[in-house]
Amino acid sequence: MSGFWGSKIKLSIFGESHGEGIGITIDGLQPGFKIDFEKVQQEMDRRAPGRNSISTARKEGDKVTVMSGIFNGVTTGTPLCGIIRNEDKKSRDYSTQAVLMRPGHGDYPGYLKYNGFNDYRGGGHFSGRITAPLVFAGAIAKQMLLEKNIKVYSHIKSISNIYDDEIDLCCINEDKFENLKSKEMAVLNDETMIKMKNRILEVKEDCDSVGGVIECIITGVEGGIGDPFFDSVESTISHLVFSVPAVKGIEFGKGFDITKMTGSKANDQYYYDSDKVKTYTNNNGGITGGITNGMNIVFRVAIKPTPSIYKEQNTINIKEKKNDKLKIVGRHDPCIVQRAVPVIEAVAAIALYDLIKE
Amino acid sequence: MSGFWGSKIKLSIFGESHGEGIGITIDGLQPGFKIDFEKVQQEMDRRAPGRNSISTARKEGDKVTVMSGIFNGVTTGTPLCGIIRNEDKKSRDYSTQAVLMRPGHGDYPGYLKYNGFNDYRGGGHFSGRITAPLVFAGAIAKQMLLEKNIKVYSHIKSISNIYDDEIDLCCINEDKFENLKSKEMAVLNDETMIKMKNRILEVKEDCDSVGGVIECIITGVEGGIGDPFFDSVESTISHLVFSVPAVKGIEFGKGFDITKMTGSKANDQYYYDSDKVKTYTNNNGGITGGITNGMNIVFRVAIKPTPSIYKEQNTINIKEKKNDKLKIVGRHDPCIVQRAVPVIEAVAAIALYDLIKE
Amino acid sequence: MSGFWGSKIKLSIFGESHGEGIGITIDGLQPGFKIDFEKVQQEMDRRAPGRNSISTARKEGDKVTVMSGIFNGVTTGTPLCGIIRNEDKKSRDYSTQAVLMRPGHGDYPGYLKYNGFNDYRGGGHFSGRITAPLVFAGAIAKQMLLEKNIKVYSHIKSISNIYDDEIDLCCINEDKFENLKSKEMAVLNDETMIKMKNRILEVKEDCDSVGGVIECIITGVEGGIGDPFFDSVESTISHLVFSVPAVKGIEFGKGFDITKMTGSKANDQYYYDSDKVKTYTNNNGGITGGITNGMNIVFRVAIKPTPSIYKEQNTINIKEKKNDKLKIVGRHDPCIVQRAVPVIEAVAAIALYDLIKE
Amino acid sequence: MSGFWGSKIKLSIFGESHGEGIGITIDGLQPGFKIDFEKVQQEMDRRAPGRNSISTARKEGDKVTVMSGIFNGVTTGTPLCGIIRNEDKKSRDYSTQAVLMRPGHGDYPGYLKYNGFNDYRGGGHFSGRITAPLVFAGAIAKQMLLEKNIKVYSHIKSISNIYDDEIDLCCINEDKFENLKSKEMAVLNDETMIKMKNRILEVKEDCDSVGGVIECIITGVEGGIGDPFFDSVESTISHLVFSVPAVKGIEFGKGFDITKMTGSKANDQYYYDSDKVKTYTNNNGGITGGITNGMNIVFRVAIKPTPSIYKEQNTINIKEKKNDKLKIVGRHDPCIVQRAVPVIEAVAAIALYDLIKE
Repeated sequence: MSGFWGSKIKLSIFGESHGEGIGITIDGLQPGFKIDFEKVQQEMDRRAPGRNSISTARKEGDKVTVMSGIFNGVTTGTPLCGIIRNEDKKSRDYSTQAVLMRPGHGDYPGYLKYNGFNDYRGGGHFSGRITAPLVFAGAIAKQMLLEKNIKVYSHIKSISNIYDDEIDLCCINEDKFENLKSKEMAVLNDETMIKMKNRILEVKEDCDSVGGVIECIITGVEGGIGDPFFDSVESTISHLVFSVPAVKGIEFGKGFDITKMTGSKANDQYYYDSDKVKTYTNNNGGITGGITNGMNIVFRVAIKPTPSIYKEQNTINIKEKKNDKLKIVGRHDPCIVQRAVPVIEAVAAIALYDLIKE
Repeated sequence: MSGFWGSKIKLSIFGESHGEGIGITIDGLQPGFKIDFEKVQQEMDRRAPGRNSISTARKEGDKVTVMSGIFNGVTTGTPLCGIIRNEDKKSRDYSTQAVLMRPGHGDYPGYLKYNGFNDYRGGGHFSGRITAPLVFAGAIAKQMLLEKNIKVYSHIKSISNIYDDEIDLCCINEDKFENLKSKEMAVLNDETMIKMKNRILEVKEDCDSVGGVIECIITGVEGGIGDPFFDSVESTISHLVFSVPAVKGIEFGKGFDITKMTGSKANDQYYYDSDKVKTYTNNNGGITGGITNGMNIVFRVAIKPTPSIYKEQNTINIKEKKNDKLKIVGRHDPCIVQRAVPVIEAVAAIALYDLIKE
Repeated sequence: MSGFWGSKIKLSIFGESHGEGIGITIDGLQPGFKIDFEKVQQEMDRRAPGRNSISTARKEGDKVTVMSGIFNGVTTGTPLCGIIRNEDKKSRDYSTQAVLMRPGHGDYPGYLKYNGFNDYRGGGHFSGRITAPLVFAGAIAKQMLLEKNIKVYSHIKSISNIYDDEIDLCCINEDKFENLKSKEMAVLNDETMIKMKNRILEVKEDCDSVGGVIECIITGVEGGIGDPFFDSVESTISHLVFSVPAVKGIEFGKGFDITKMTGSKANDQYYYDSDKVKTYTNNNGGITGGITNGMNIVFRVAIKPTPSIYKEQNTINIKEKKNDKLKIVGRHDPCIVQRAVPVIEAVAAIALYDLIKE
Repeated sequence: MSGFWGSKIKLSIFGESHGEGIGITIDGLQPGFKIDFEKVQQEMDRRAPGRNSISTARKEGDKVTVMSGIFNGVTTGTPLCGIIRNEDKKSRDYSTQAVLMRPGHGDYPGYLKYNGFNDYRGGGHFSGRITAPLVFAGAIAKQMLLEKNIKVYSHIKSISNIYDDEIDLCCINEDKFENLKSKEMAVLNDETMIKMKNRILEVKEDCDSVGGVIECIITGVEGGIGDPFFDSVESTISHLVFSVPAVKGIEFGKGFDITKMTGSKANDQYYYDSDKVKTYTNNNGGITGGITNGMNIVFRVAIKPTPSIYKEQNTINIKEKKNDKLKIVGRHDPCIVQRAVPVIEAVAAIALYDLIKE
């Protein structure tokens, strides 16, 4: 089913892009935790649209109303529900969306699955907007993880073929990653960031879009977390990551490149660094046998170019059952990678919180 | 937890490499289905060790005893349990495995997770041997899928940096893929296969190992299967695929390469081919919005080089809490990619059967 | 966890009695179904407080705002979330509830479970008020069941030791049951109803409370629904029924009385009634081997007397860690059985919808 | 589905009465626990058939082979699978069972559910024999609970209308309950036991059967265990208890009798017994708001008379689609209550272990 996930914590999401509102219920949170809602809002703002020249003009405050689960300023331990009203709904005509299936979108698969009853306005339940509640839940998970000194970082590894600086998989400069949150784009190298931004503006000019790769690093996770087989750390993280619209790939550690290494290079050899066990390399991204080994968890996620482009495209008209042409209107990001950064961090934080919870 | 998975069908696996036996229970299978157990055994044999110069010398018949769920030659619809006795267990000394953690293996994470009580002999529950029951379940799922004209194919896309022929993501030559099952390695191009085999023998000679990429194609799946968000087709498949030891990455359609395309190239534009809806390209691998669109499902899986190599490696001695050296003995594959092929097909078949089941 | 349930449909509930609001998200509903929201509201009203002399004076409209899952007047098939704002919250002093544990309530167990962080105002998440969202979900399930000619009926079998008319477990007079919805109490026999009401008013006068038994009958369920063992129909229904506060027992068919029968009397012997298979008796309440046999499903639920009474009671003061006395104030029902009737019907409908869904 | 259950531990069962074998896989057990398999066998023997004049003549050693999850004599923490071969299968003619549906059994519902493909020999997967693996799992859970000083006791509360001594719900004589394990029937009062046994022999003589009630008491459970709503302690226990064939009712504390009490009598008033919080009465059976309060958990289970009786019965012939007569042959218990005692204890222990596990 579309909206339920979890093991030690459980999530249920709901909402359509142009419906009454969207939201999430989170169950299994520890009681007595003081959530910093200002920080939560900061995370919401990182994802929110309408912030600069490279994102959509749609403006949503994305203000969350907490319906339950908080009492005297702390979590109760009972389900916490947060809702967001849809404010900036344009009451324009959506009849085209009902019949002309947008390529690269969930329109047509959704039409098939729901026998034509899905809300097609702005993608409905398939809209990237539904990731806002995930960011809300992730922001809470992040704060709870921080208590255990677990931190979730990420940067834009690439936009198209423009690559950010390589990171050391064993050990990152945390200050540099902390700084990314205040930057226009989460890119380590400033010059690269400008190049990326220019590329995005170029494709925007061309009525087109572009994708990229997000690299996520989780520090402070102890060894021994996760399970062999069906609930491996990779299984758990990838399950949630592939819930995020536009994700087409995930790799851990060296990922696909590890297939070109020999075992003697790929194996992360152990040593004692005083009492602490470490590995000289981190090609496995902190996970072997499905379980954490105490090194940083590192993974990369492929985000496809925004499917909503202003160029004319071929498509089908499902009402008249004929081939047709489509020119998408409305407000769309030429690149969603920078807005996906907090979403990927959020689902990583949620997955981790579920994994470490006792 | 390690051994339970599923939604519309449910699996539970058990076993250790050198314990009494291994097995799987499958619940939710359709009643009245005549399983061709000869074909099941053929799938088991594709994965089984000891078949040629490039795989481990361990010989296991991998004969499955069906304990339940079959009556008068057909499925009853109640849980089907298959068990495999461990026959070729060498009764050698495993005391080294108890203290010297093999790099790249689950030994050390497992030691942490299970407080040192895990069965370390041959990797115990972390052994690749535990994939044999998955192949058994997958072989059954494949037969049930075939009834609905759904077929699961795969080939070795690459070993190290040697690449097999590119396939057309929209349409494959099914005959060529059927033939792969009788080949020594599941490679489309014969010359490439020889090169791959030679590379494997080279690294074997060098006491090392090598990895590769498996490409899996599922044909015949109707559109409208799967869910947006938490149970997207990608989420479901990747969850199971990352249960397979040694997998470090997965990508759908064009995968990571889609991030370098523009939206106008990446979007799979629709057209009517008489009554049937198709897309001109299949860069999304048959899935948009988490749901199938009726095109082939295509994904690629990164398999790391076998961590068991005969070269001396640095590691830790957890008994004496000191740095140490390890030279692995025993029987190991210089490359597990060719043996992983039926395993990846199996988990793909299981995931699909779960997704399409009504 | 407290708030998640389901298999083929999934529910998540949230809310505290005196918090911002309460609600439910339902996933897995069939798309394209036109919900009659007037009928839904009628069910809400059956449970709502403040309707007559025998229920609490608290007045809540219990108006549900549908946040998602409805488009063009029909279900979309994506998660449907309904929320109810808490309106009639008295802003009185709840400091006594924080320290004096009410006997028979969840106060003290909740205090232990949530380390003292639970919302104690009006019982918080333990309040009977949280059953309102269940009635909402049940009202939807009922309408969907009706499409398949499945109907859920119930009456008050007893209040204290006053018993309503015995029903024929094989076949009920559906008209009489339909009429119950417009009665002040769901009692078949009018004279009995008056006696019950008088008993309730008596105990109310005495600052005390009283309990009773609800009998639920589900007609129109085909045979072959449910599972042996862990998901028997009895398991599924009882799991949900025991989620309803104040329930202390459930029995199917003849229930505890069947233990006093001999097998030859207890067994429901089969016969063909033209083409249809029936049983002469229905001592098993329509379920054998965990699976429906096509006869009416019948079960009875024991509802304890309202724990909130105005008599002084002994209790503990958890702040001062001493024995203390408690006189409960506020608005409470002397009997909740009549208000529990639509709740039991609701969870029965939800369970059934989950069981029959394909 | 029939064979999967659990949250913090997970179970999967399989098997048919006359198939190859039956068994269970348990996941989530704590690592490093030394299971006393002699004690496990004692529990198996309590359930096993063929022990005396009041149980079936079928003789099964019910010897469990542990396939996995034990290493060096202790649990590994990975899935533990135990299997039991079916030894004493009579190779007689079962063609009657295929067409004449036994009243009170799962034959006909199973026939409908599995489209006629279920194994009908001896009830197949519906057989009480499938409870043997539950007793195995329960025996392990019991030992793990004992480490935390939690004990699971039970006695036969009644056979037909013959009642054993009333127990004090607040506090039981544990020695007397320990002694029950060595008695022919788990009855506190010796004279009552003789009466019960005579009643069973009477109905046996009459080719009939009889049922009864089992009362289960769990001591040593701390307060704060369980959840409000969907995973209340009552929900969890009842879900598993109704998985046991022949169970038709369950009640906690005073159960159905609490409906006849006033609130002032029914409420369990709290007091401090030095530091420990207790209640003067235990009418709620140790659970309020779905969560334990630290008092004994007490529940009673209604077991119906064995449906297999030697008297001629009316039934349907599903092959010829006509009404018919049936005289059951084979070996059957005139009363299964005494054999159900260890089964109910087992599922209670499993439920508790799942609830308390951290």
